[in-house]
Parts: sequence; C-alpha cells; structure tokens
Amino acid sequence: MSPKELLEKYKSGEISLTEALEQFPDRGIEEMGFATIDTDRFSRTGLPEVIYASGKTVEQVSLIAERMYQKGIDVLATRATPEMFEAVKKRIPGAHYNKLAQTITYKQSHTPNTKGYIAIVAAGTSDLPVAEEAMETAQFLGNRVEKVYDVGVAGIHRLFHRLELIRNARVIIVVAGMEGALASVVGGLVDKPVIGVPTSIGYGANFEGLSALLSMLNSCASGVSVVNIDNGFGAACQASLINKL
Amino acid sequence: MSPKELLEKYKSGEISLTEALEQFPDRGIEEMGFATIDTDRFSRTGLPEVIYASGKTVEQVSLIAERMYQKGIDVLATRATPEMFEAVKKRIPGAHYNKLAQTITYKQSHTPNTKGYIAIVAAGTSDLPVAEEAMETAQFLGNRVEKVYDVGVAGIHRLFHRLELIRNARVIIVVAGMEGALASVVGGLVDKPVIGVPTSIGYGANFEGLSALLSMLNSCASGVSVVNIDNGFGAACQASLINKL
Amino acid sequence: MSPKELLEKYKSGEISLTEALEQFPDRGIEEMGFATIDTDRFSRTGLPEVIYASGKTVEQVSLIAERMYQKGIDVLATRATPEMFEAVKKRIPGAHYNKLAQTITYKQSHTPNTKGYIAIVAAGTSDLPVAEEAMETAQFLGNRVEKVYDVGVAGIHRLFHRLELIRNARVIIVVAGMEGALASVVGGLVDKPVIGVPTSIGYGANFEGLSALLSMLNSCASGVSVVNIDNGFGAACQASLINKL
Amino acid sequence: MSPKELLEKYKSGEISLTEALEQFPDRGIEEMGFATIDTDRFSRTGLPEVIYASGKTVEQVSLIAERMYQKGIDVLATRATPEMFEAVKKRIPGAHYNKLAQTITYKQSHTPNTKGYIAIVAAGTSDLPVAEEAMETAQFLGNRVEKVYDVGVAGIHRLFHRLELIRNARVIIVVAGMEGALASVVGGLVDKPVIGVPTSIGYGANFEGLSALLSMLNSCASGVSVVNIDNGFGAACQASLINKL
Amino acid sequence: MSPKELLEKYKSGEISLTEALEQFPDRGIEEMGFATIDTDRFSRTGLPEVIYASGKTVEQVSLIAERMYQKGIDVLATRATPEMFEAVKKRIPGAHYNKLAQTITYKQSHTPNTKGYIAIVAAGTSDLPVAEEAMETAQFLGNRVEKVYDVGVAGIHRLFHRLELIRNARVIIVVAGMEGALASVVGGLVDKPVIGVPTSIGYGANFEGLSALLSMLNSCASGVSVVNIDNGFGAACQASLINKL
Amino acid sequence: MSPKELLEKYKSGEISLTEALEQFPDRGIEEMGFATIDTDRFSRTGLPEVIYASGKTVEQVSLIAERMYQKGIDVLATRATPEMFEAVKKRIPGAHYNKLAQTITYKQSHTPNTKGYIAIVAAGTSDLPVAEEAMETAQFLGNRVEKVYDVGVAGIHRLFHRLELIRNARVIIVVAGMEGALASVVGGLVDKPVIGVPTSIGYGANFEGLSALLSMLNSCASGVSVVNIDNGFGAACQASLINKL
Amino acid sequence: MSPKELLEKYKSGEISLTEALEQFPDRGIEEMGFATIDTDRFSRTGLPEVIYASGKTVEQVSLIAERMYQKGIDVLATRATPEMFEAVKKRIPGAHYNKLAQTITYKQSHTPNTKGYIAIVAAGTSDLPVAEEAMETAQFLGNRVEKVYDVGVAGIHRLFHRLELIRNARVIIVVAGMEGALASVVGGLVDKPVIGVPTSIGYGANFEGLSALLSMLNSCASGVSVVNIDNGFGAACQASLINKL
Amino acid sequence: MSPKELLEKYKSGEISLTEALEQFPDRGIEEMGFATIDTDRFSRTGLPEVIYASGKTVEQVSLIAERMYQKGIDVLATRATPEMFEAVKKRIPGAHYNKLAQTITYKQSHTPNTKGYIAIVAAGTSDLPVAEEAMETAQFLGNRVEKVYDVGVAGIHRLFHRLELIRNARVIIVVAGMEGALASVVGGLVDKPVIGVPTSIGYGANFEGLSALLSMLNSCASGVSVVNIDNGFGAACQASLINKL
Repeated sequence: MSPKELLEKYKSGEISLTEALEQFPDRGIEEMGFATIDTDRFSRTGLPEVIYASGKTVEQVSLIAERMYQKGIDVLATRATPEMFEAVKKRIPGAHYNKLAQTITYKQSHTPNTKGYIAIVAAGTSDLPVAEEAMETAQFLGNRVEKVYDVGVAGIHRLFHRLELIRNARVIIVVAGMEGALASVVGGLVDKPVIGVPTSIGYGANFEGLSALLSMLNSCASGVSVVNIDNGFGAACQASLINKL
Repeated sequence: MSPKELLEKYKSGEISLTEALEQFPDRGIEEMGFATIDTDRFSRTGLPEVIYASGKTVEQVSLIAERMYQKGIDVLATRATPEMFEAVKKRIPGAHYNKLAQTITYKQSHTPNTKGYIAIVAAGTSDLPVAEEAMETAQFLGNRVEKVYDVGVAGIHRLFHRLELIRNARVIIVVAGMEGALASVVGGLVDKPVIGVPTSIGYGANFEGLSALLSMLNSCASGVSVVNIDNGFGAACQASLINKL
Repeated sequence: MSPKELLEKYKSGEISLTEALEQFPDRGIEEMGFATIDTDRFSRTGLPEVIYASGKTVEQVSLIAERMYQKGIDVLATRATPEMFEAVKKRIPGAHYNKLAQTITYKQSHTPNTKGYIAIVAAGTSDLPVAEEAMETAQFLGNRVEKVYDVGVAGIHRLFHRLELIRNARVIIVVAGMEGALASVVGGLVDKPVIGVPTSIGYGANFEGLSALLSMLNSCASGVSVVNIDNGFGAACQASLINKL
Repeated sequence: MSPKELLEKYKSGEISLTEALEQFPDRGIEEMGFATIDTDRFSRTGLPEVIYASGKTVEQVSLIAERMYQKGIDVLATRATPEMFEAVKKRIPGAHYNKLAQTITYKQSHTPNTKGYIAIVAAGTSDLPVAEEAMETAQFLGNRVEKVYDVGVAGIHRLFHRLELIRNARVIIVVAGMEGALASVVGGLVDKPVIGVPTSIGYGANFEGLSALLSMLNSCASGVSVVNIDNGFGAACQASLINKL
Repeated sequence: MSPKELLEKYKSGEISLTEALEQFPDRGIEEMGFATIDTDRFSRTGLPEVIYASGKTVEQVSLIAERMYQKGIDVLATRATPEMFEAVKKRIPGAHYNKLAQTITYKQSHTPNTKGYIAIVAAGTSDLPVAEEAMETAQFLGNRVEKVYDVGVAGIHRLFHRLELIRNARVIIVVAGMEGALASVVGGLVDKPVIGVPTSIGYGANFEGLSALLSMLNSCASGVSVVNIDNGFGAACQASLINKL
Repeated sequence: MSPKELLEKYKSGEISLTEALEQFPDRGIEEMGFATIDTDRFSRTGLPEVIYASGKTVEQVSLIAERMYQKGIDVLATRATPEMFEAVKKRIPGAHYNKLAQTITYKQSHTPNTKGYIAIVAAGTSDLPVAEEAMETAQFLGNRVEKVYDVGVAGIHRLFHRLELIRNARVIIVVAGMEGALASVVGGLVDKPVIGVPTSIGYGANFEGLSALLSMLNSCASGVSVVNIDNGFGAACQASLINKL
Repeated sequence: MSPKELLEKYKSGEISLTEALEQFPDRGIEEMGFATIDTDRFSRTGLPEVIYASGKTVEQVSLIAERMYQKGIDVLATRATPEMFEAVKKRIPGAHYNKLAQTITYKQSHTPNTKGYIAIVAAGTSDLPVAEEAMETAQFLGNRVEKVYDVGVAGIHRLFHRLELIRNARVIIVVAGMEGALASVVGGLVDKPVIGVPTSIGYGANFEGLSALLSMLNSCASGVSVVNIDNGFGAACQASLINKL
Repeated sequence: MSPKELLEKYKSGEISLTEALEQFPDRGIEEMGFATIDTDRFSRTGLPEVIYASGKTVEQVSLIAERMYQKGIDVLATRATPEMFEAVKKRIPGAHYNKLAQTITYKQSHTPNTKGYIAIVAAGTSDLPVAEEAMETAQFLGNRVEKVYDVGVAGIHRLFHRLELIRNARVIIVVAGMEGALASVVGGLVDKPVIGVPTSIGYGANFEGLSALLSMLNSCASGVSVVNIDNGFGAACQASLINKL
C-alpha cells in the first residue's frame, strides 16, 4: 500500500488507526533483539537515548554502548557499576567514569555549553552521588553548571552566603534527603523554576526517600516541581529543556 | 492479707507480681462504669486527666465533665463539638468553648502562670485549629504563651522578623502542614527544644498529614522531636513539662 | 543598633546569625494576627501571595482577600467554596468565581499576556477541575493558555490530532488521573518541559491519586517533573516561571 | 502536504515521527470541548467508549450520553447517581438504570448474545454492587452471563454446589472483599481463566480493598489475574474479549 | 450417578476432584438469590451464620434476618444501623438493638451460659462501641462475660485494681486504640490467651487503626494474637471457641 | 464406610460436610513429608504443578524435581538459582536452565505448540528477566510465543513498528517497570485481552514495583488485567488458558 | 519503710502509685547489665523468658543462654544463626539446633507432653522455616504437635485428605504466605480456634508478608486470629496457652 | 555596599530580602568543596556540627573529621563503620570508637557534666545499638547519663524496680522496638518529659520500625514526643537541650 493510499483509507474509515500505524516505516529504530535503540529520540524530544544500567547485565550495557558509539551517538549510562565501566572501556577507549555519580560518558559531538547555567544545590555531603549524577547529565546535555553543596537548612546561613549564585541561574536543581526542606526554602527565595530531587538519605522513617519526596511535593513555596527519588538524571533532563528555551 | 504480708509473700516468692499487684487498694480511681477517671494523674505525671471527646457520645462527655467538676478537678475536653459544649454548659455554667480549637475548658484552681513562656509558631492560617488547641492546653496547664502565626518558609522573612520572641521562649512548638519545613528551619536557628506538630493541611500527597509528619521526624536540625498529626494537645503537654523544669 | 553596627558585629562574631536576623526591619509583611501577608512575594519569587482557602474559615478568607484588595494586590484564592465567594464578593464586587476550578480571582493590574503559551493537556473530563485550576492560575499570572482536554491514551489518536498545538507551547502541563500514562506519552513526543499533575480520579486502587503520582514520578520519558496530587495551581506556578524565562 | 509526501518525508528523515503524527486527519473523534469522544474505539479495541461518571457533573454526563445517542452509539455509564439518570432519561427516554450497580444503559443495536457464557461469582451479598456492575457491562457487550452469588469460603460447600455451572463457563469473574480467598480457591478448581475483582468490603484492615487486592495478586493458584478494586466494569471488559475469542 | 459410583470413579481417576465435588447434594444451603445462607455453619464451625450488615441494603438485611428467624436460626446482625433495626423489628418483634454496639440480636434457643468467662478489657471510653460488639457477640454465643472498661496504660493502676478479675478469666479480649499498648501489658501479666482488637480511635497518625494493629501484632508479650481493626465480633468468636474447649 | 453410605449420611444430615470431606480417598497426592505434590493439578486446572524455588532449600528443590521426573510429570522450576540447577541436573540430566529467566525446565511429553500465539511485549531491556520467565513458562505449557522487546512509550514509534505482530496474537502479555504505561497504550490499540506484568525496575519511588502495579491496575484502557509484580510465570499461565480456549 | 507502711501510705494518698511501685523488692530479676532476665515470667504468664536472637551479638546470645542454663531455666533462642549456635554449644554442650527453624533449644526439665495436640498446617514447602519455628516452640512448651505440610488451596484436596487430623486438634496453627487463603478455608471447616501466621513468601506484591497478613486479618471465617509475619514462635505460645486450658 | 546602605536599601524597598541576604559576610562557614562545615552551629543552637557518616565515603568522613579537629571543634561521627574509624584514627590519634553505637568521638574541650541527668531506658538487649548511640551523644554534649536496659513491658516489674532512678532524671529517653509500649507506660508513671526512640527491631510487621514509631506517636500518655526510627542521636540532642534549661 502506498503512503497516500494508507492515509486515505484511514480517513475514509476503511482502515483503523492501529492498522494505519502498523504500516509505518521503521525510521529511528536500531534493533538489537534484547534492545531497540531509539535513534530518533534527540530530534524528537531534545534529549538523547540514554542507557539506564540498573537491571541490565554487564554484557547488555557494553553491547548497547558499543552500538551507539558505532552509530555516532553520544553515550551516557547511569547507575553503572565499575565492572560495567571496565567492559565499556574495552569497546570505547575514551569513555569516562564518575565513581560517585556512577555514570559512564562518552561524547563525540562538540557542542558548546549554554550561556545561562543550571545551579545544582545539595543539602548534605551524603547527597552528592545524586547531585553528581545530575551534574554529569547536565554537562553531557551541553549545559553550564554551578555547584552549591552542603548548604542544608540546619545551617541556613550557608545557603544565604551562596544565594547570589543560585538566583542568577536560569533553573535550579535542589538535591536533598531527610526532610528535604531545602527545596521549599530555596523556592521561597528565588524567581526561577526549582526542580526538587529527593534522596534516600536519612534515619529510619525517611523510608528510602519517601519523606523527602512527600516533603518536596507538598512545598509551600509554589514554583517547585519534583522528580523521582535519587533521580539526578531526570532532574538534569528537565533542567536542560528549560535552560535551552 | 495485710500490706506487710503482701509484700513479704511477694519477696519470698510465695505470690507472683501479678498476684501482689491485684491486692492494691483502689486509690486514685473514680469508677463510672463506662469510664474510670484517673484522679491521681496530676500528682503522678504533672498532667491532669483530660477528656478526649472524639469517639465519645455527647452524654458520655458531659457526664465525665460533670463528675470531674464535682470532684474539684479542672476540666479540659479536646475535639469537642459545639453540641458537646452545649451539654457540658448545662452542667458547668462557667465552662468556656474555643470554637477554632474545639476545646472546652473550666478551671477552678487559680495557679499563676509560669514566668518563662512557650512560643507557638504556626506556618499558615489553615494550621490555626491545631495551634489554638496547643495554646488552650498550655494555658490550661498554667503556662504563659506567645503566638507567632502564619510565618511559613515560603516567606521566610516573616519568621526572621519574629525570631527574637521565638528565641527567648523556654520551649517552642512548631505547627505546620504541607511539607512542615518550618520545624527544621526553626530548629536550626534556636538553642531551645523544638516540638513539631505536623498538621493534615495540604494538597493530595500530604496524605492526611503524613508528609509533614515524616518531614519533621527527618529534620536535619537535631533538637527537634515530634508528636502525632494535628495533636496540639500532646505538644502542649510536653512543652509544659519542659517549661516547668 | 544601627544597620552598620549590626552587620559589623555579625562579621566580627560578636553576635550570631540568628541575632543579626532578628534585627531585620519588617518590610514586606502585612500583619493580621491570624495571618501574616507576604507583600514582598512577587518581587522575590515572581509569584504573588495567594490564598489557599482549604482549612480556613469563610471569615478568614474574606478578610485576607479584602486586605490584599485594599493594598492593591491582585487576589487569587484556590479551593474556595461558593460560600466563600459570596463573602468575598461583598467586599470585592468585581471578583470572579470559576465553579469547576473552585477559584476566586480579582485582578487590578493589567499586564498583557505572554507571547508564548502554556498548553494544558487533560486526560479525561473528570480531570477538568484540576485542569481548570491550572488554567485560572496561569492566566492570573499573565500567561497565554491553550487547552487540550480529554485526550487520554485509551484513544491515543485524539492526542496525535492535537500534537501540533502541544508541541508549539513553551511548556506543557499534563493533568491525568488513573494510571497517568499521558505524562509519559506526551513526554516522549515533545522537546519542551512537561509538568505532570496527578489527579485523584479513578477506581479503588488509585488510592486518592497515588497511582498517577507514582506513575508520573517514574516516567520513562525523561523530561517530566511532577507536582502534588490535584495541584493544578502549583503546576501553573512553575509553568509560568518557565514560560517567562 | 499530501499523505504520500507526509510518509515519504518521514521515511527520509526530513520530518520526525511527532511531526508526521500531528498531520493525521481527525477520524474517530467527536469534539465536545470538555470531552473528546472516541468514536473509533469499538472497531479498534472491541470495546466501545463508555462514560465513567465519577468526577463528572450531572450536566457533563447527560450531554455526553445525548451526543453518543445522537451518533447511534450504545450508551453505558458507570458510577452514575440517580440524579444523573434523571438527567439522562430526559434526553434518552429508553435508558435503563440498575440502582445496585449504579449503571445507566441504553442499547440501540441488537446483537445476539454469545453462546458461551461468563460466570460471575460473588463471595457475599455485600459484594453485589460490584458484581452487578460486571453483569450489566458483560450483557451490554453482548455476553451471556450466569450469576453465582454469596458463596464465600466461610461456607465452601456453597461453592461446590454450584461448581458445575462455574466450570462450564468460558471465563470466570470472581468478586470478593475481605480476604478475597475465593479467587484462589476457584482458580484451583477450574481450567478456565479467572479474573479477580477485589472489593472494598470488610472490617478496618481491609484498607478500602487493599487486603483483597493483594490477596488476589498473590493467588497461589496460577491462572488468576486481577483488575482494580471495585472495578466490575473492567473485569467484564476483559472477560468479554476472552469470551469472544 | 449414585453416590457410590461417584466416589469410585473419583478414586479410579475417571473423574477429577472438581467433578466429584460438583455432584454434592445441597445440604446446609438456604438459597435466596442475592444470598446463600449457610445453615450448616454452627454444626461445622461452632459458630452460626451471622449477618454482616455493612454494604447491604436495609431490605437485604431484613429479608435475610426474617428467613433465618423462620428457619429457627438465632439472629445476630453486626454493623446494623437504627434504620435496619426498624425494618428487622417489623419482621421479628422480639429483636433487640444495642445502639453503641450497632448489633441486632434475637435468640430463640435457651442455652445456659458457660461457667468460665471471657474478660473484655477496654483501654478507653472511646473504644466502647467495639468492646460492646464483642460483648453482645460473646453473650449471643452463650458465654459469660466480665467487662473491665477504661483502664488504659496512661493510668496503669486502674488495670492493677481489676487484675484479679482479668486473671481469672479463661480468655481475655483487649480492646484498645491509639498505641494499643494495653494488649502487651495485659499479655505480660496473665497466663491466659489474650486476643487483641485494635480500634480506629486516635489522633492523625493512628491511620484508622493501623497504629494499634501494628502495635498488637508486635507485642513483646508472647501470648497475644490479633483480629481485624474494630472487629469486636471476630474477637468474641475466637474467644468463644477457646472458652468452650 | 462405603462411598454410598458416606454421601447418604451427608445428605440426611447425619454427618457434616467436613466429616464427609475427610473421608475422601487420597487420589492426586504424592506425599513427601516436606512437600505434598498435587499430581492431579493439570487435569483439574489445565496447568501442571510447578516448583516455586524461592524460599526452598537446594535439597528440597532437587528432591521435588526428581520425584516429579520419576512420576513422568514435566518439570518447571521458577526463581531457581544456578546452584539449584546444578543439583537438579545431577538427578535429571536433560534439564535446561535459562539464566536470565532463572527457570529450570524438563519436558518429557511432546505436545505440539498452539497455532495461535501469545505476544510478550517488554518495555525495556531491564525487564527481560521477567519477560523471559513468561516466555519459558508459556512455551513449557505448549504455546507459540512472539517476543517484542524494548518498545516502551518513551519512543512510542518502536511500538507502532511492531503493532501488526502484537495485534495478531490471541492474547498479549505486557511486561513493564517504571510507570508501566505500556500496558494502557497497548490496551488502547488492540482488541485482544492484555495481561499486565509490573516489574520492580526503576528509580526510588517505583517502590519495588508498586508504581507499575498501581499504574496497570488503573489502566484507562479497559481490557487490561494484572498479575503480581515480576510474576512472568503467572501471566503466562493465564495467557495459556486463554490461548487454548 | 516497711511493706505495711508502704501500702498504707499509698492508700492514704501520702505517696503516689509510682512512689509505691519503686519500693518493690527485685524478685524475679536477673541483672546482666546489657540484659535483665525475667526469671518470674513462667509462673506469671505460663510462658518462659526466651532469647530473641535477632539484633543481638553472638556474645550477648551466648552469655544470656549460659546464665539461664546456670539458673536451671530451659533455653530457647529463636532467629539464631549457626554461628550463635556454635558459641552457645561451647557453654551448653547438650544444646540442639534446628537449622530450618533457626532455633536453639536446651531443656533440663522433663515435663510430659500434653494429651491434646496442636496441629501445624503449612501451605507450601517455602513456609517450612516458620512452621518449624512454631513446632520447636510448641514442643519446647510441652505440647504434642501434628504437622500437615504443603496443603495450600491451589490443590485443596490435599487439605481435605488430612482434615480429620486437623479437626481433632485442640487448636490449629495455619502458616501461609502469598495470599494466605488457607487460614480462611481451614477456619470455615473446623470448630476449633485457628491462629494464622502470615509468611513473607511470595512474588513482589506480597510486600514482605503484608498480603498474607491483611488476608488473614480479614478472614471471612470468624474463628481466626493472627500473629506477626513469620512469627511461628508467637503462634505456638498462644496455641500452648489454649491447649493447656 | 556598606552594611548600613544594605539594610537601608532593604528597608526602603530598593532591594529585596534575597538581595539583602546574599550580601551577608560568610562568618561561621568552613568551605571544603564537597562539604560546608557550620562552625557557628554550637553558639546558635546549643548543639555542635556533627558528621552523619551514612552515605559518605570513608575519605569524606576522615577529611571532615580532620578539618574539624584542626579547627579545634570536638568531633562526633554517627553511623560510622570500623573502616571509617581506622581512617579517622590515623588523622586523630585520640579518637574513640563505640562499636555497638557505631560512633566516633573526640573531645578536646573539657566541660564538666551536668548535675541533673538523662535516663536512657531501653526495652530489650536488641535495642542497645540505638541506646548506646544516645548515650554517646548525650555524654559528648556534656550530660550525665543513667542507663536502664532491658526493662520491656513483657516483664513490667523490671521497670518498677528501676522506677526511682528514672523518675529522678530531668528528662527520659525511651528506646524500644516491636510495639514500643514502653514509652507510653513510662510516660504514664513519671512527671518529666519523655522522648521516644522507636527502633527497627522485631518480627515482620514491625516494617523496619514503623510499628514502634506509630505506637509512640499515638501514646495515650500525653507527655511523650518522638524522634526518627533508630535515631538515638536526635533524642540525645533534644534531651540535652532540655537538661540544660
């Protein structure tokens, strides 16, 4: 059936939407059997296909990374173990590993960084793995980043001291565990969008990050939105979309 | 069995603890069939017997209040409906009702208030029913109270503006719903014990106060403890014990 | 103490941060006893003080609205009952009520709307109260809005049909209950930030919006962030900050 | 752009998938502003568009029902109040209301019922509202139904007594609250697919149906799948798809 | 097929268990369409069929009660509204209603009460509806009952004072809300089985009885078992089985 | 007692149901002390007895497998560790292990596969362990299977591309973690029953699969039912019963 | 103060209850600094002091065991690791370890077993660790035990086959994971008290035993009570108290 | 801008609060890149900066400890592993490790202990790690401590025996897992503030400490507040603030 016939039959009701959709050519797909790489993602969503390594075998991660590398796609793998990095490195010698962030990166393209920057504000040193995941992702996506670490509300003057740097960002990522109050406090002091990342850091009743998650979702400061627990990657993705507006 | 025999038999092992205990005379008990008033509570715990009206019938509340009144015990009923107040008033003409706090009070004794005071800090106007319950209870227990209302972290300068009053208290009650961040922020700015009262105020994922509860339990400021959701009464009880040390 | 002395003593360590803070003059505060209006909020955060009517009495809402009106501040009250509107209307004759959204608005200032627009996409007709709250808030904040209603994934062609309108927005709010899949699907098709608003609509195991909340937080599409359940207001606030970048 | 050009540009990479999708003609859509009826749903999924009345206003329900009626689409509304039925009846005189099931139905088409039947098995009389919703839906979709009510495991011989009728069905819906054990027991006695519907019936720790939901999801009998709490409608939909294979 | 053939065919493998079971005659069943009364339950389990009125219509409750009455079966309905009682009374003039317990009872048989007794211990006056449901059920089942009300651990001497009465019971039901500590304390003082009934009484974080439920399940005293939240009926059933051993 | 007497006594009321049941001969049982193999299960439910290895010792698994093997029953063990496989292999040399799926299989019977097939659709590569468990089980039960892997909604054109294969199945299993939106999207595009399997894959707030579970239970597409988290086995069992109708 | 004075002063109100209590001699206590052995427990509650090894160090467990051994108290340690057993064995050569049950036992006293017995019914082989803990405890407490293992409802005839043995017990412990339906089914077939023990066995949404716990708490059969998840020990304690009535 | 100008501009409205705050000099801050030590904390809150080691790397912990040591600040690290202690010891030879409490302490200052003392009451030996964390923290903060261990309510006479010591404290910390009833019982017997610390000790349905947490929050004795699960540190902090009033 020619494309023209296809859409005309759909319009006339001869074929249904699902029948029309299943005739679509397979552009933007790289088939690997156990994986189906979405090569079209960047042009469609402004964010490239990324390898979420958790739950995948070492072999799967390194094979997907290699295929992307061969296709000329920049590689970012999150939640990657040192063992995975070793396997990837054999296939992509220039790959880089951030141990704290658990990220593997390899960039072939050379896009200049944005002029405006993303501020990444972290409440405590224990939150750094998540903050660093956000930082690696944001830089991978071509954003300038400024880091403001260990400025939780227990010593709020530490935050005030860096407030200028935070306020001048185009978008702010706040990473905090425990009660996650930092997101609300920052949200009440700036006129830029704040993206909260709750972390799973804290004593028992933080329930693996639930306390900070609920806290940030209930922020009394109104310009705050939230991503998944420990999801520095997701926060950086949205921050990048905003920063590039 | 004489008291002496009782304890000697217990010591020798002839009777067990439970057997010894069940011989105890019934001092400090006022039997009403459906209720057993603990007339000894004040001398034992520094806090009097109080009527928790929720789940009781109008008749039960007014009968218990009347009996306490007749015994010369000061009356405090929490979570009392206007209908309950009408019934109590018929039996205790001088009783007082705080509609916002839902408390009935009647005080026969005339103890002067404490010199030091309890600061009651509330994040928003929607939290006032709980803050007022705390205030009524604290005053009923003979404490001087200072109120600092609607100073949530979305506009943190409102808090700074009243900080002196808060810091000079002997103990501070922080009442907040939503993300309850106010408890941590206050906790990081004062050198007095802070008692957090999470409230059930907020959008959907506050889950009837769970967000503020978990938030306060996970406070990164370390001098903060917490009572039950919406439990202004309990916070005032502990604050009173502390204030009277 | 003069301002100069104040900061110098702080710098030298003679007085602590909290002591310094408590000397701050009370600019940006309108005291009402039961409420402390944050008149400085707009210049500080780009978002004005707003009345969250839930948990407040009819009288409190109308008094706060009146005071803001007198001060020349634009009035937005969310979660307002018809009874509250009646009381406000007596004090502010030109106030407007959106029954579905449960919002009261009154605008004295006449700022022109933004050029770029916010798309508000709702999965089903049952989600409209939340979508309309977002719409009212976004317009109150001076944003142009486009509405795309009832395009849930059970009939995904309805979404495709409006995709152009959605893609051309600067920021997209997706309102959905039940499984909230619409946020992920939209997130996978556009290159703009998506803010998900889970709603409490659905059969039993939606647990008052928990299903859609978790769903959106776990979006496999990476440019999605989330606000509280049924919180159309909060989504519009962040969208407005983004739209005005 | 002609359909042919459209798909060719997509194939060549000139336009992206989203751009291609947004050119699709709007077949299968009935626009109502607050609702977007999916007129194509039956041909696509074997199940027609249905009105989920919960969260909709009386006016919205009756307008959608009327529009479907005018288009010659059979009408089924679930979770409909008597008030909604009164409004619908004015527009569709032949509409029928099942008070227990809370369903409004109106059928213009006259498809004969299936030969094989769906057995609807309910544990207790308190589960009947859900069982009846399933029954109304299944019949609306053209299925023969057999009802086996009040045969919970506390008196398991009641189940044995009707076992033949159950075993001869092509698919079985088991509706049960409390501990929902009936789904497992039936699942262990038949060789047909069992669809469990947990209900919100029971003492406190059933947590609005959570107990029966978890119970059925954990069935030790392996041919059991589950739909949402109290979702008799959804169970009947899947049962109908199975029965018509 | 004759009974003999039936079992022989089953034994030889000619027919399966389910096929054998479905041939069973319908003894012990009273069919009512919307209900299937288990007339055999008492002889099988020592506990009669009982009407759980919650979720049933007034008509259903009164019809089931009437049918049992006509069959000479004693009637107990739990969670019955006053309206239900009015309807039942028209059909069974001698029926009795306990308003606090929400139970309807009618006893035709005249079995003498047991010699040993069940102690029902309640922590507070607010727990009485549940305690009374247990009491009505236990007496209906022919047990002697002793009540010990309002002896929660906040005034533990009230418990000691009645300890002898509690220790001499054959089995003890402890009804408590809030933190439910009374079950553990009683469990540590007696050498009889303790059945805990958590109630939904308490401030916010009791989460409809969850706090007392978890508390009792985690009792550090080891002779304690638990029934559902607010389930005085279930506790009395098991206590009766134990008391009659 | 002869079978005939047995049933006659039951019918006359001389013996109760439980007394009748306990006279049943022990057909369909293979006693092993620590295990009681249900040799009758296949003829009764269309699904054979299967070894759920989790929580069993290596020795228990291998002994049960051996006994089944000796009885001529096909062996399927799920959640089996490599160590368990080593032990089984010593007893059943031809046994096969799927490392990703963690299944041990051994088939003695040679039933031809079904004509119609089950489509197994997985959202991401991290979901493969569950998808493979479903595949192994479905094939073990004699079904033809088609696999469609890594087609999650973040790149929805990957799904469209394989839609024809999915639509032509008789029943479809959708395996997805994170937000599990794939089940709803597939459910809205096909006219066959969809069985959702939520997986425990995802960032923090997936809460071990809860997000995908709730998501699938709340599917706005109505022909979707759900099995337990990560339960590929259960999904394949029900799919097999449906496929064989 | 003499015992007589003590109680008289208490009666007259001169001293409070707490003051009276703190004068009690220290009978029934064995002080070890990190532990305070309750040597009086057996005479008071009918159940001896037992070592709950979880959370204790190897050294603490062996020291407590040794002290009890020296005092002539029978030793039972639950949740004991093999390493703990090695340490205990050095101090108590005759100690016995049940690896599946994780219990250490040493009995010096020689009480004959009870005439009546406790039936321990387990749904699956994976539930045996808990069932064996119950068995070891029950025997340690001097009860005769009958075991009925792997008779879950997926093959309900296995249960019927052993029904006589179960019905003749004085009390029945039902151990089951997954959906825990066995407790309800047994409860509906016997006239003896049933104690349910939910186990943490099952696929994902059993949530560490929550599914079986809620299931058993919601049993539609009314003579069932429940103990903590995996708490075979607690079930045996209560069963022993009942069996010895 | 001079300090004077700063505050005057703020007062006049020329600059906003955030602009004023960001001009603050950086007193009380020790920058380390990955950490920002709050050197001002003790003078501000009465509690020093402490290292929460969980989630930090060994290197981070030892570097922060060293920097504090060099600045003359006393060092307390909680949740520290033996490996961390080894690293710290190399930098601070006099550091001390409490293995049970998992704390590292080093004190340079020599403040005399308080006259009044904090009583630390623990329910069981398994709760000692938390109790010891509280003890180490309280002593580090200069408080006298009395320990009362293993006095849970299963053997309540053990508590009575030590009641005098407990009542004479100025503030009482109660550490308990399982059902946490000890907090309520102590709260009902003393007239001093009680701080409850729920622990994660117990069988399955303690849900990592949730049972004791909810139990303590719902204490029927009113002078009880609560800190996070297993948070001995936080309890000691608040107790210290109270003890020093």
